[in-house]
Amino acid sequence: MSNKEKVGSYKFIAEPFHVDFKGKLTFGVLGNHFLNCAGFHAADRGFGISELNEENYTWVLSRLAIEMIDMPNQNEAFTVQTWVENVYRLFTDRNFAVLNQDGEPIGYARSVWAMINMNTRKPVDLLSIHGGNIADYVDDKECPIEKHSRIKVAAQEMVDMSIARYCDIDINGHVNSIRYIEHILNLFPLQFYEVMRVRRFEIAYIAEARYGDELKFYKEEVSPVEYHVEVRRNGEEVICRGKVLFE
Amino acid sequence: MSNKEKVGSYKFIAEPFHVDFKGKLTFGVLGNHFLNCAGFHAADRGFGISELNEENYTWVLSRLAIEMIDMPNQNEAFTVQTWVENVYRLFTDRNFAVLNQDGEPIGYARSVWAMINMNTRKPVDLLSIHGGNIADYVDDKECPIEKHSRIKVAAQEMVDMSIARYCDIDINGHVNSIRYIEHILNLFPLQFYEVMRVRRFEIAYIAEARYGDELKFYKEEVSPVEYHVEVRRNGEEVICRGKVLFE
Repeated sequence: MSNKEKVGSYKFIAEPFHVDFKGKLTFGVLGNHFLNCAGFHAADRGFGISELNEENYTWVLSRLAIEMIDMPNQNEAFTVQTWVENVYRLFTDRNFAVLNQDGEPIGYARSVWAMINMNTRKPVDLLSIHGGNIADYVDDKECPIEKHSRIKVAAQEMVDMSIARYCDIDINGHVNSIRYIEHILNLFPLQFYEVMRVRRFEIAYIAEARYGDELKFYKEEVSPVEYHVEVRRNGEEVICRGKVLFE
Repeated sequence: MSNKEKVGSYKFIAEPFHVDFKGKLTFGVLGNHFLNCAGFHAADRGFGISELNEENYTWVLSRLAIEMIDMPNQNEAFTVQTWVENVYRLFTDRNFAVLNQDGEPIGYARSVWAMINMNTRKPVDLLSIHGGNIADYVDDKECPIEKHSRIKVAAQEMVDMSIARYCDIDINGHVNSIRYIEHILNLFPLQFYEVMRVRRFEIAYIAEARYGDELKFYKEEVSPVEYHVEVRRNGEEVICRGKVLFE
């Protein structure tokens, strides 16, 4: 077993083009940082994408829930911590904490990942990889936000449509996970963000969209501060579901 | 005069969500790095946005031309260098070089900036600021790419339309400069990028778009490898013009 710390810690600055009109870091950029930190942390412990790819395995993000009491301001330093909370046969839970420039926690996130065989697209037994030593990295650091919820969207009326284009497509040929976060937040008018802020953002990735796919967005108002969104390919197959809680 | 080096040098890694389907860093992300480096370099020399804002001044990007013989691959380290080539009364020319992980140049960029008074929105005489010491930072490092050209777009047929939304708006309340780069590159089908790559990307920023503005895109094919694009607010006022050269 490596002697690496179980909790990885990575420093960032909130760049000018990574903040919104209020000067606050965006959820899309923060989500991107989380995914990068997950990659760094896994790679440093022998479970990085490049090592896995040699065995034709890769990580797939299944769920992400982010809850923030504040967001870094433009040009502010902040730290993302990440650690593994649980490892099961087919999933692993990875958590994140965001610390402001004074080192105080301003938010947390939970994510769920699966590993798949890139040839068969079938899930891999995580406990069979590297003799199951992924379990040695589990840490009991506290993550005081709720687990992912089940997101149900009954809405039948489409509120937006978008066609997947060049800049949306990642190296795997799929629409990149971060784009959905931006698309979903773009469904709300600026006036929402003027008087409220997003406290919790949750997303469940169900299927992959590809270049040229017509993504249709269905939005349901559960309450004036809670919205559920479903993204459907050509209005049928569900690609992902999101939940946005304002305050 | 400060004893800072005239050429600033900044290291980056091509992150997984910052590369396209070919695994190459995108022009949008590279442009964002350029603008950040410009900010770091200026701030270190007393001409940063935050110092300027105290005097109610700010920098405005007027033109950007990027020419690349290659792009960093996913997870590769690269370096952005930046320096001031010229300072005139109303404009300054800032150049960039991109070095690959072996320290070899793989591309260059030229940018033109003005300084404005945020109250009057009028240009500021650059040689009057800090006793004109911005001129002390001029460096004659070579930038072996062509200067900006004049971009003319006669096309009257709209090829795309986009409404400026929450995630497009920066801290100044304007559509952020990088979004236009992505929008323009999204006007070309993936098949273009499969068989060609962008050698040169040029953009001239004319006016600012705001939340809710309807941005209409007009594209002109000058040759099978050269395209000019004009972005017009509500199909009338010109917001920016771009030129894309493939090879």
